[in-house]
Amino acid sequence: MDKKKRERLNKQLNFIIEIDKLKNIERMNLIADGTRRENDAEHSWHFAMMALIFYEYAYSPKVNLDRVIKMGLLHDLVEIYADDTFCYDEKGALNKTERETAAADKLFSLLPEDQAEEYRSLWEEFDAMQTPDAIYAAAIDRFQPFLNNSVTNWHTWSLAGVTESKVYKRMEMVRAGMPELWNFVEDLIQAAIKDGRLKAD
Amino acid sequence: MDKKKRERLNKQLNFIIEIDKLKNIERMNLIADGTRRENDAEHSWHFAMMALIFYEYAYSPKVNLDRVIKMGLLHDLVEIYADDTFCYDEKGALNKTERETAAADKLFSLLPEDQAEEYRSLWEEFDAMQTPDAIYAAAIDRFQPFLNNSVTNWHTWSLAGVTESKVYKRMEMVRAGMPELWNFVEDLIQAAIKDGRLKAD
Repeated sequence: MDKKKRERLNKQLNFIIEIDKLKNIERMNLIADGTRRENDAEHSWHFAMMALIFYEYAYSPKVNLDRVIKMGLLHDLVEIYADDTFCYDEKGALNKTERETAAADKLFSLLPEDQAEEYRSLWEEFDAMQTPDAIYAAAIDRFQPFLNNSVTNWHTWSLAGVTESKVYKRMEMVRAGMPELWNFVEDLIQAAIKDGRLKAD
Repeated sequence: MDKKKRERLNKQLNFIIEIDKLKNIERMNLIADGTRRENDAEHSWHFAMMALIFYEYAYSPKVNLDRVIKMGLLHDLVEIYADDTFCYDEKGALNKTERETAAADKLFSLLPEDQAEEYRSLWEEFDAMQTPDAIYAAAIDRFQPFLNNSVTNWHTWSLAGVTESKVYKRMEMVRAGMPELWNFVEDLIQAAIKDGRLKAD
């Protein structure tokens, strides 16, 4: 391997070791047995598995599953430097974009230029939620913690500030990206309200 | 959604919740900061990211990256029931096939029949290490813990029974699936022997 190729490999190796830190970024939701919080690497794996298994419910035949899986694998990498922002944290949401853009600058620049451009652009597409792939990906990104929440006595919704209208707003992307699953989602939300696990506004 | 479709969805939902258990299957190797053992969900995510980033080193242009990523996502699912078998555990290796086949019967049958067949067959292809996709996947499956091991003072190699010849045997698939990286791998193995971190036979 010549010097230039070895430099390229070194960048890739450094990136691969650096992103190991995703295994230490904790999210608010629990794993399904309720024993501990989930981390971003676990969530990203579960996201990719769900994108695969639920693909038949994607809202459009234009959705490219292979691209969505790649989006899932890297969609939370910026949280290595920007940390996870709880989806119902309004204060955290205020500067989320700035924090994540700075994190993306730092993280993707570890890679060789061509790969940095390719994967940063895929993350930006995910983040903008405009293309068919990004809309389905956003639906999966919300559906994954929703499902884990549903089997852990709605733990996440017991946290400060979560109310019915905020949950409906958050779950809008599931309705958009996987409309066939909306009845299932809404039934669970309504049951949680009835059981006193989710506050009305 | 009619009754038949809802039954199909229920199977998929049960499968997705059941595989959450992969987050609790511990492996022998540590995460890169050395603070704890890695679990199978984290390993599977890291595997998929590595398949993506190192694809240019795949030994054959016949390797289909998208299939390899899917193999990576599900290659360790059987360990939910069969548990992780340490790659240098010769006793555990004796009945590994029986244990994993029984686990596959149990796990994939949770899915609707068409998906059960598709994903079980992909796992079997991975496990047999014969096709171009499975050979590259096997290389990644060995390279991922090797890299984490290299940044944690070769923790795994300090465990009972690991010797130079066993490591070379284990890493054969990296040489086969990513031949360009072999010099890098061998240099690290030789340095570890020199530093007394890996026993000669």
